[in-house]
Amino acid sequence: MAAPTSKSLEFPKLQNDLIIRAARGEKTERVPVWAMRQAGRYLPEFREMRAEHDFFNVVQTPSLACEITLQPIRRFQLDAAIIFSDILVINQALGMECVMVPGKGPTFPNPIVEPDDLKKLNKDVDVKERLNYVFSAITLTRQELKGKVPLIGFAGAPWTLMAYSIEGGGSNTYAKSKKWLYTHIDASHQFLQMLTDVIVPYLVCQVEAGAQLLQVFDSHAGILGKDIFCEFALPYLKQIATRVKESLRTKSIEPVPMIVFAKGAHYALEELNNSDYDVVSLDWTILPQQARSLTPNVSLQGNLDPCVMYCTKEVIQAKVEKMLSEFGSQRYIANLGHGMYPDFMPESLETFVNSVHEISEKMNQ
Amino acid sequence: MAAPTSKSLEFPKLQNDLIIRAARGEKTERVPVWAMRQAGRYLPEFREMRAEHDFFNVVQTPSLACEITLQPIRRFQLDAAIIFSDILVINQALGMECVMVPGKGPTFPNPIVEPDDLKKLNKDVDVKERLNYVFSAITLTRQELKGKVPLIGFAGAPWTLMAYSIEGGGSNTYAKSKKWLYTHIDASHQFLQMLTDVIVPYLVCQVEAGAQLLQVFDSHAGILGKDIFCEFALPYLKQIATRVKESLRTKSIEPVPMIVFAKGAHYALEELNNSDYDVVSLDWTILPQQARSLTPNVSLQGNLDPCVMYCTKEVIQAKVEKMLSEFGSQRYIANLGHGMYPDFMPESLETFVNSVHEISEKMNQ
Repeated sequence: MAAPTSKSLEFPKLQNDLIIRAARGEKTERVPVWAMRQAGRYLPEFREMRAEHDFFNVVQTPSLACEITLQPIRRFQLDAAIIFSDILVINQALGMECVMVPGKGPTFPNPIVEPDDLKKLNKDVDVKERLNYVFSAITLTRQELKGKVPLIGFAGAPWTLMAYSIEGGGSNTYAKSKKWLYTHIDASHQFLQMLTDVIVPYLVCQVEAGAQLLQVFDSHAGILGKDIFCEFALPYLKQIATRVKESLRTKSIEPVPMIVFAKGAHYALEELNNSDYDVVSLDWTILPQQARSLTPNVSLQGNLDPCVMYCTKEVIQAKVEKMLSEFGSQRYIANLGHGMYPDFMPESLETFVNSVHEISEKMNQ
Repeated sequence: MAAPTSKSLEFPKLQNDLIIRAARGEKTERVPVWAMRQAGRYLPEFREMRAEHDFFNVVQTPSLACEITLQPIRRFQLDAAIIFSDILVINQALGMECVMVPGKGPTFPNPIVEPDDLKKLNKDVDVKERLNYVFSAITLTRQELKGKVPLIGFAGAPWTLMAYSIEGGGSNTYAKSKKWLYTHIDASHQFLQMLTDVIVPYLVCQVEAGAQLLQVFDSHAGILGKDIFCEFALPYLKQIATRVKESLRTKSIEPVPMIVFAKGAHYALEELNNSDYDVVSLDWTILPQQARSLTPNVSLQGNLDPCVMYCTKEVIQAKVEKMLSEFGSQRYIANLGHGMYPDFMPESLETFVNSVHEISEKMNQ
């Protein structure tokens, strides 16, 4: 069993530490598995809750966030829960208004347009107070999980949050935010550092509140090339892992394993391997064996094409078997290469989870 | 000078065959350069024309398509023109209504929803007649170019056209069309073959009309993983190159060089190298030296991050210099890694084009 990570709080004893051991490169008797967006619209009980509550209302209400986090844990033999929240809470904490527009996703009515707009942001925000609802949700959920599985905390990566801030929402080309990287170089670094300086205490506070692993989502890494990824995204990703772990050690808290998911960054696997992250999470376009050979220092997570969830039980099983044979059964966390989509059948995730367990147990015999 | 490619038509003598030689792997004294979407909204004269004419009206009117094709050729020392058209004319020829929705792009009001919908498509379309406006535009433009530079013809790839048909427009996940690949396997192959069987004569007719190179755009390759790309996209891409060249030979027309641009398919460079394409076009996330080592059989095209066009003249020059030093000056066609964006300054393309010429000439001295 892993050592307790939180200093002051007392939590139920952890009964399943597979994912923590896999993340640390320790031996596991079966491959741990979870799914990004496992708490999501594909679950009828999630849609029921959302019919009554606005998205950010759920995020900001610990009892509701806890309930939604637990929904997939009740249904499936998942090896981890991930706190229900949103990466854009960091932008909100900095003072940016963010609304969930149905059919369009999270939107900033007043995006960052030019460098002067950065002055409007509240960079000295008291993270512990301003995002207290997340920490409360984590503590409550960790209690409610009763040690069944570890609880993952997370944050968006600086580049991804910067891109959202400038685009005001989604984009095909991310041309506005990439234009900043090419033409407002100093302001871009200033913004990325500002975001990093909020993300670090945010993640540290999540661990203090009870998070047992952390994942950093660089969802828009794929729109960058290697040059600008290495100049504007990677340094801040690395800084986050290093500083979070240092800060936890300073507080006499054992650092938790950290996962980095730079979606689409097929060109930067070696760079991610040489960082303080314990796990590199892969999208479905990455070939497992190629990734293994480029990342000897880390455990890997991923990377089934989410659309395999549309297949029959037999096909899902076969695809899982192929994936496991390619990644191997050690230093590995099974997951999708992206989040669950709203029109997936819950039964598909059940098949996915059970297949990972059954096949990997056989592999380890 | 390259041999004439069109059998019956007489055209002005070609004065600049750099791109044809580079595509064929022959020695070039300087690197040829053009830009995807070089005829586009970033040009004031293009916007002026579009203010008066609907998008598909321009595509369907040879004199307008010719005029727009020539606009960037008049301004810049480009080494190729590309006929102004749209990849979705194939879908229109199959009987699908397609409208250009401002701010949203091309949209199908009645997308393909289920396999039975394929029956509605007119797979026996007379390509030569139905898409005659494209061939007329090509012949007219080839005449009007007066041999200044070669004229490129193009088509969308089967997977990309299938994805548009099913999604009805753009998409973040392409989940509907990928669901077909996973669950309607036979119908997917049927649809892809149907598209291929229209694309092949479409490209052959373009060459007969005067096109001197051909490019196939698989714009949505990146959303596929290697497995489904190799099952559903690659075989049809290969079939197109092989059959177009065979068909031209049968007609005693010398096959023109063919370029494949599978955007985002970083995982399939070796497969594209082993096909009948002469050139593999790369997006900006691909590392030039890595691509070179994986594709010994072909010339390469690309791949500057389009957003570099936002930079100063000096920075554009420096990025071009780096790109050329990484690709080398032979078996290479300089281009962006994606199309020109509407808010680029025309002067940036001028800098890009002139830098490629000046730097590559020095490299060859």
